[in-house]
Amino acid sequence: MTDRRLACVVLAAGKGTRMKSDLPKVLHPLAGVPMVRHVVDAAASLGPERIVVVVGPGMDSVAAAVAPHPTVVQQRQQGTADALAAALPLLEGFDGDVLVLYGDTPLIRAETLARLAEARRTPVGAAGTDPAVVVLGMRPDDPGAYGRLVLDADGGLARIVEYLDATPEERALDLCNAGLMALDGGRLRAIMERIGNENAKGEYYLTDAVAVARAFGWTCAVVEGATEEALGVNSRAELAALEGLMQDRLRRAAMAAGATLVDPATVWFAADTRLGRDVTVGQNVVFGPGVTVEDGVEILPFCHLTGVTIRRGAIVGPFARMRPGSEIGEGAHIGNFVEVKGSRVGPGAKANHLAYLGDTDVGAKSNIGAGTITCNYDGFLKHRTAIGAGVFVGSNSTLVAPLRIGDGAFIAGGSVITTEVPADALAFGRTRQVVKEAWAVSYRARKQAEKAAKEKAKG
Amino acid sequence: MTDRRLACVVLAAGKGTRMKSDLPKVLHPLAGVPMVRHVVDAAASLGPERIVVVVGPGMDSVAAAVAPHPTVVQQRQQGTADALAAALPLLEGFDGDVLVLYGDTPLIRAETLARLAEARRTPVGAAGTDPAVVVLGMRPDDPGAYGRLVLDADGGLARIVEYLDATPEERALDLCNAGLMALDGGRLRAIMERIGNENAKGEYYLTDAVAVARAFGWTCAVVEGATEEALGVNSRAELAALEGLMQDRLRRAAMAAGATLVDPATVWFAADTRLGRDVTVGQNVVFGPGVTVEDGVEILPFCHLTGVTIRRGAIVGPFARMRPGSEIGEGAHIGNFVEVKGSRVGPGAKANHLAYLGDTDVGAKSNIGAGTITCNYDGFLKHRTAIGAGVFVGSNSTLVAPLRIGDGAFIAGGSVITTEVPADALAFGRTRQVVKEAWAVSYRARKQAEKAAKEKAKG
Amino acid sequence: MTDRRLACVVLAAGKGTRMKSDLPKVLHPLAGVPMVRHVVDAAASLGPERIVVVVGPGMDSVAAAVAPHPTVVQQRQQGTADALAAALPLLEGFDGDVLVLYGDTPLIRAETLARLAEARRTPVGAAGTDPAVVVLGMRPDDPGAYGRLVLDADGGLARIVEYLDATPEERALDLCNAGLMALDGGRLRAIMERIGNENAKGEYYLTDAVAVARAFGWTCAVVEGATEEALGVNSRAELAALEGLMQDRLRRAAMAAGATLVDPATVWFAADTRLGRDVTVGQNVVFGPGVTVEDGVEILPFCHLTGVTIRRGAIVGPFARMRPGSEIGEGAHIGNFVEVKGSRVGPGAKANHLAYLGDTDVGAKSNIGAGTITCNYDGFLKHRTAIGAGVFVGSNSTLVAPLRIGDGAFIAGGSVITTEVPADALAFGRTRQVVKEAWAVSYRARKQAEKAAKEKAKG
Repeated sequence: MTDRRLACVVLAAGKGTRMKSDLPKVLHPLAGVPMVRHVVDAAASLGPERIVVVVGPGMDSVAAAVAPHPTVVQQRQQGTADALAAALPLLEGFDGDVLVLYGDTPLIRAETLARLAEARRTPVGAAGTDPAVVVLGMRPDDPGAYGRLVLDADGGLARIVEYLDATPEERALDLCNAGLMALDGGRLRAIMERIGNENAKGEYYLTDAVAVARAFGWTCAVVEGATEEALGVNSRAELAALEGLMQDRLRRAAMAAGATLVDPATVWFAADTRLGRDVTVGQNVVFGPGVTVEDGVEILPFCHLTGVTIRRGAIVGPFARMRPGSEIGEGAHIGNFVEVKGSRVGPGAKANHLAYLGDTDVGAKSNIGAGTITCNYDGFLKHRTAIGAGVFVGSNSTLVAPLRIGDGAFIAGGSVITTEVPADALAFGRTRQVVKEAWAVSYRARKQAEKAAKEKAKG
Repeated sequence: MTDRRLACVVLAAGKGTRMKSDLPKVLHPLAGVPMVRHVVDAAASLGPERIVVVVGPGMDSVAAAVAPHPTVVQQRQQGTADALAAALPLLEGFDGDVLVLYGDTPLIRAETLARLAEARRTPVGAAGTDPAVVVLGMRPDDPGAYGRLVLDADGGLARIVEYLDATPEERALDLCNAGLMALDGGRLRAIMERIGNENAKGEYYLTDAVAVARAFGWTCAVVEGATEEALGVNSRAELAALEGLMQDRLRRAAMAAGATLVDPATVWFAADTRLGRDVTVGQNVVFGPGVTVEDGVEILPFCHLTGVTIRRGAIVGPFARMRPGSEIGEGAHIGNFVEVKGSRVGPGAKANHLAYLGDTDVGAKSNIGAGTITCNYDGFLKHRTAIGAGVFVGSNSTLVAPLRIGDGAFIAGGSVITTEVPADALAFGRTRQVVKEAWAVSYRARKQAEKAAKEKAKG
Repeated sequence: MTDRRLACVVLAAGKGTRMKSDLPKVLHPLAGVPMVRHVVDAAASLGPERIVVVVGPGMDSVAAAVAPHPTVVQQRQQGTADALAAALPLLEGFDGDVLVLYGDTPLIRAETLARLAEARRTPVGAAGTDPAVVVLGMRPDDPGAYGRLVLDADGGLARIVEYLDATPEERALDLCNAGLMALDGGRLRAIMERIGNENAKGEYYLTDAVAVARAFGWTCAVVEGATEEALGVNSRAELAALEGLMQDRLRRAAMAAGATLVDPATVWFAADTRLGRDVTVGQNVVFGPGVTVEDGVEILPFCHLTGVTIRRGAIVGPFARMRPGSEIGEGAHIGNFVEVKGSRVGPGAKANHLAYLGDTDVGAKSNIGAGTITCNYDGFLKHRTAIGAGVFVGSNSTLVAPLRIGDGAFIAGGSVITTEVPADALAFGRTRQVVKEAWAVSYRARKQAEKAAKEKAKG
């Protein structure tokens, strides 16, 4: 649903020097997704007519992360109003509202953006005129050096006072400027023209939009959000702190929906993880992107899951690793030190110990023995293994793909299987056991002498 | 030691709707044990003559969790006094003290229950009469909307005031009602008869017992406990919070007894875990039920241990998994990506890498090579493997049970062993190596062509 | 660079009874290093002429941990001044400054020690004389029962007042005695002679040095440090707390230098871990001693790394274990359930699944298949495996060392390789597959009957 009266501009040109990274700051991931993508997704949830992302020179890699939304380069990096100005050519002919967001404040919520947009269209105060500018405010525990928001008698926004310029009375205010803003597109260009750079750094600040609007005689307004929504990322430590806050959101939501997290602080979600009801997640489980877990699944501790759908009642782990393109069937078991990649494991099937299932289909109720390896790679190409239903694969088997094993077949433990096994057949590929009596007695004597000689040689 | 003057009633009928679970709330586990079991065990430690658990309709599964103590069904669910009334038929003929506990407050300590029971038998105030009702009080950091306990001049309990009915002075009191209660069995039935349901919800509240008792002219008393003891579980988030508190108790106790937990927040105990002195537990170790660890054992990071006894000086992990019915001998080593299930590993024996020991006995000082798998399951039945002392099992061996390997035997790496190996014998089951010179040159050429063709076909 | 005017004495004779350990308290490790070693290393960074460690009787094992610095035994354990006195024979002929440290306060920073030493040589107050004693002060959040430091009008230290002896005004002071001290060696012996033991315990306290110095008419001074620097270890819980503080220091430093720690609380460093720029460390990674990670390396969750150098752009984990003497080449991949010990893995080489590489050299771009095991141990001696460049080792192979595999060779999956494989050769050691049609039908019938009989026999 497109809102033709709304456009969003995401400012993402900051260099992020303190990150000490070759990666543009806004591409550092949170919950497995580039930071700026969280902002773009929140903006997109409002259905705006356009989303424009302002990047710095040499930040081409951001374009892929925000696609299909266009990027525009802010050449000079002379402040936030300069950044917004860089986006104006892409808003040519648009006179709806403009929401300004920041690529490095990824905790902003869609619902807060919606309130900002709505406030822009809502008359303020006695005059009853809709505000030219709406600013997101917040009340941090420690207001510190944030700019303070001074309200007028009508409850409208009188002005933003920078901390350094503030009187003691103004500093005592706890309502602070969070930075995000909604502007009336019809009045935006008039405001932008008047924002100057007569300040210490010689930059153009979007904050000044409020003073300019008020000078025109227009009203301004404030919408309050949670402080965490405006937290920015300027260092790896702040990145980690925001990751923690985002994880807490995801953990609370999972628990509220009926999942047990035995120790929530040790479960890490991707932004798109979906958990059913009565799912239990043990300690130390990492969800990468693309995981869906159905009702009643039990995920034991120490699992790493990416790109997998786990069907009802399955049991996974401990120490299981799932990679993309996998599906674990209803009631199936995947046990310790087992890796599953690009594979479908049928209902009730089991692979409980030390196995690698790569590019493999396993039929219902088949049992994959401990130490079984599917050889899906020949050094050049990948091949698939198709294992039927009710198959028993003995331990330490080597299944060389491409390979088909029919329903009900039995593979003897320790076999190397290279060609098709018909249904209900026994297949083996191993040598008869040979025993040499008393051999170990002379072996030990010989080795002990060898060891003694070696130690003597050493000194 | 049975206390014939005491009975305990555990109220466990709550539906726990906010848990969003098919499992009755009181069966959700803490430290690996159903929540209600912690309450029943705390009650049982007092040696009461009877313990009765009141459940709701359709909660039959609770019976197993609290066995051998009987359950009784509260049909109507009309308040806590109604729940206690449901238990009275099972207290027929009993006139000792009745302690009322809650199945969803699992952090209650036995020692606090003992103080409640003792206070019931202790004269109060100038009159010097023993109280009809003793209430557990607490002083939470934020008293919030808890009911307040108003004391009389004698230090007895004058009344319980619900927060909504409280005056500002009463709300300023920090002594709150924790819910648990001890009642004089001789006066219990008289009190119960007088508790009415003239309130907003039309329910019968046990809290009213105090007002009723005072109306009879009987004294009441308060015993103070720690706030955490009265914390209840109504959501998965609260379940996780209480799990954390319980783990903290267990961690502090383990450290006080002389174990090093490198990062205590990443060690999770079961309620019955036993650790010796000078045990070191690395980061990220999960103890399931039934683990005993003797003195001087080192448990390296990333282990998952259940149902295992680890003898003095053994070293386990990292990335080791122990399952029930296992014993690791003195000074034995179990290393990374090794699973041990239903197995006894002898003193000084080693299984250091990527192995599965299932239903196996390993003799003293034997060495189980990397990648060794015991095939204990034939698709239908489980079988045992008996490995003697001083045995060397070469890497990647497959040991097909039932199997016996005699003392001092040597199994060549990569063998499949299916029949008994005598003591001191060499056994192998593998084929002589064949080499085809220069084969890989043509293989690479063929495969590269195949790969190129495939890529061309794709696009 | 040796400072000939400075000696350091580390008091490490405490028994640490509350640790409940057979290990001397100061040998319990923090960040993988014995506690006392952190103190000695901090002292050593000042380049003092001598460092002497005072231990208790029977603590010989401390000597190895502090080598090459000498230890001296405090026979009587009669207080801190008595401990310092035990060190004096080893300071015979030395009249420079003496810095007194404690073996159980391992968070002391070198820079704080430097400031203490410098203050000792800096004139104080109007008199402008250099102080005989400089005490480390701190301002803990809760001053509790710490001794208070009373300053004189000049900013010098007037006296140390024990909490029990302090007036209410003195108790209100927040500057507390942290215990560490720098003394003028020229006046040290005069001070020591006057310190008495007329106190409740009959012990000689170094704290009294201030009163003695002032009685001589000498000035004393205070240098302030962070409270955590003076935290001592008296129990396993305190050990864990200090481990946490030390880890926080190491984590903050790693992030400030340009590494991403996805969840810093789940990354544990050794004191000597070195991380490059744009290194990403996933959740739950444990660094043991001796790890160097170059730029751009990605360490996925659940890794345990010790004694390994990981070159640029390599990818490691999840669930990887690296042991000492290993090097992972540029752009190499080490995947899940893989152990590498004493091995060099060449640039671009891969060992992605369930493998053990022990005492092995792997050439550039070689591919080690899933389940590959190098058999480096014959029960008596270790042997090396040399794998060339561009080698393909098929899955589940068993490589029996000593062994050489030439460049470009191809090992068929499931092979046992025991003798040299020339370059570009194919080698295999496995049996041709045999198939017995319909065998599994009768097997299942037989086994089901067996299982039924067994169950019937049970009851």
